[in-house]
Amino acid sequence: MESRITLIPGDGIGPEIVREAVKVLDSVADKYGHKFDYTKILMGGCSIDEYGVPLTDEAVATAKASDAVLLGAVGGNVGNSKWYDVAPNLRPEAGLLKIRKELGLFANLRPAYLYDELKAACPLKEEIIGDGFDMVIMRELTGGLYFGNRYTKEIDGLETAVDTLTYNEEEIRRIAIKGFEIAMKRRKKVTSVDKANVLDSSRLWRKIVHEVAKDYPEVEVSDMLVDNCAMQLVMNPGQFDVILTENMFGDILSDEASMITGSIGMLSSASLNKTKLGLYEPSHGSAPDIAGKNVANPIATILSAAMMLRYSLDLDKEADAIEAAVATVLKEGYRTTDIMSEGCTLVGTDKMGDLIAERV
Amino acid sequence: MESRITLIPGDGIGPEIVREAVKVLDSVADKYGHKFDYTKILMGGCSIDEYGVPLTDEAVATAKASDAVLLGAVGGNVGNSKWYDVAPNLRPEAGLLKIRKELGLFANLRPAYLYDELKAACPLKEEIIGDGFDMVIMRELTGGLYFGNRYTKEIDGLETAVDTLTYNEEEIRRIAIKGFEIAMKRRKKVTSVDKANVLDSSRLWRKIVHEVAKDYPEVEVSDMLVDNCAMQLVMNPGQFDVILTENMFGDILSDEASMITGSIGMLSSASLNKTKLGLYEPSHGSAPDIAGKNVANPIATILSAAMMLRYSLDLDKEADAIEAAVATVLKEGYRTTDIMSEGCTLVGTDKMGDLIAERV
Ligand SMILES: CC(C)[C@H](C(=O)O)[C@@H](O)C(=O)O
Ligand SMILES: CC(C)[C@H](C(=O)O)[C@@H](O)C(=O)O
Repeated sequence: MESRITLIPGDGIGPEIVREAVKVLDSVADKYGHKFDYTKILMGGCSIDEYGVPLTDEAVATAKASDAVLLGAVGGNVGNSKWYDVAPNLRPEAGLLKIRKELGLFANLRPAYLYDELKAACPLKEEIIGDGFDMVIMRELTGGLYFGNRYTKEIDGLETAVDTLTYNEEEIRRIAIKGFEIAMKRRKKVTSVDKANVLDSSRLWRKIVHEVAKDYPEVEVSDMLVDNCAMQLVMNPGQFDVILTENMFGDILSDEASMITGSIGMLSSASLNKTKLGLYEPSHGSAPDIAGKNVANPIATILSAAMMLRYSLDLDKEADAIEAAVATVLKEGYRTTDIMSEGCTLVGTDKMGDLIAERV
Repeated sequence: MESRITLIPGDGIGPEIVREAVKVLDSVADKYGHKFDYTKILMGGCSIDEYGVPLTDEAVATAKASDAVLLGAVGGNVGNSKWYDVAPNLRPEAGLLKIRKELGLFANLRPAYLYDELKAACPLKEEIIGDGFDMVIMRELTGGLYFGNRYTKEIDGLETAVDTLTYNEEEIRRIAIKGFEIAMKRRKKVTSVDKANVLDSSRLWRKIVHEVAKDYPEVEVSDMLVDNCAMQLVMNPGQFDVILTENMFGDILSDEASMITGSIGMLSSASLNKTKLGLYEPSHGSAPDIAGKNVANPIATILSAAMMLRYSLDLDKEADAIEAAVATVLKEGYRTTDIMSEGCTLVGTDKMGDLIAERV
């Protein structure tokens, strides 16, 4: 099979982790007789440096014309980077929001699970971890406060800023369907998270989710308020299978969920639209402090490449092979700094990529 | 001194925990020669049952005419209570939002600290706890998504719900001042939490917070994105002194922060306006499942009463006495079920109240 993959190395550690993921993809191509054609585009700070904007329309067109997009990370340290003294829509992150909107990537899937080998890195006590946890957050990604009307102006002589949180039934329905579909392939449990005791948008959310739920009688569905969910993630993460939620709540809860696994360097994500085209990226950021030092953990990006094979290219077997290779390397005791523990073998970014590529 | 205190027992465990707090207040009154006049008002489900609305205007007037308000908890189990099949503004929680608005309670102060005696209940590992943590969340309470314009209507043939997040400079300034003032009495560190890479309201928030910061040169101020804060609370809670944030972020983060202490039954809160009048309540909810069983932990409410003495009645010495009494009882090994551990003495709600009242 021949596929066109857009690569967005981005900023910070982005280029080095994407490089390792490509290494692994090439090894898959070799072994299974596929051809992956890569086209690189700029996004984020590097695009600002080159073109003055975080993402050009040409770059968007390239991404649209491909079968899948693999992203490293964009942006820098807010307090300490040349890119942050500019208008908000010229900041690196604006590129990310633009590509989500332009590609219609409304469904953001973020798995958060605890690796047996990495239990030591989990910040939670043994008795809370229990039998471990394995959940996915299904976050709506192109609606809500992120893309609502916003402005700052003087009202009654006072500088006033307004953001708008809007959802229509269609936007809620399509993400709910994605949530229930993935639940059907998992433990068949959906926790829909909202703030229905306050927000109109949450009440519509809740109503539509329960309408969609009727088409999935096998799935156990429940509602949870967002403040309670932030607590439950710390108290009893094992209760969750699929967390289904809107954009801003999903942003906060998915970061909390990934942190309680203790291995944010291991967590992949997929952003999907109504076609096969998707964008895949690690859950972590661009970590400018360690960029270029060959210490970044490439596994989250490599696992994102595996998700890409599964969801955009229908190469399930190949995706399995990557995931198995990652598991093997961990069992063999190889670790990057972020997940290092006693008795293990410390390796750099490139060596970790080599090891996984060899075992595919 | 003579003070008028409005009591809102509310629903679920509310009445029994407020009863114990009154017991402790009476003991303070005795010992220090004060007179507290109590007036009870209904709010929440019990008010719906009696008057058909979660809070009457007469009840609001009573609260306004008093020196301070002590609240137990309102509401029931959303999935399983007669109060939840009604319109949103007739639900128990609507009473809470109404009283916040009517009394102008814009500053919500929620301490989250780890009790030495209760470390066993903390869900975080020893190495994360480190030297412990002791923070307060200063949450804006009368603005943002909670009180913005909201409506649901058909747009382009689709049911569409809209909530509005609005802040003006004055609303931000007054809560920022509260945040810096409390930081001056603590470790002089403010972490202002926003989502300035996306929201206009957060950019105004950040700008005004830094303007206010200039008046507090001794305070170290930093900005943190809300998603990052949700992670940092789990990874490194010890870094925080005062977290200053808007209404919805504060709702989520304060619940997360209280849960990582492992002792949500111990955490008090204060909601303040620009006068001395404030509303004091435990951080936990109405726990209908255990209502009337004499097992609820009254300490959060008793400590809320202490905050009331300190912030609304200027009775610092008396507030100290209550806090010291709570510490003593814990050291003596008395525990309610929620905080019980090996070797301690299990006591009921009323006995815990008696013990603290005696030691005041
Ligand atoms: C960079 C930022 C705009 C983005 C978001 O909030 O969606 C990030 O936090 C994420 O979760 O991918
Ligand atoms: C009951 C609800 C409206 C309320 C809020 O969201 O403010 C509660 O969660 C709280 O934090 O006091």
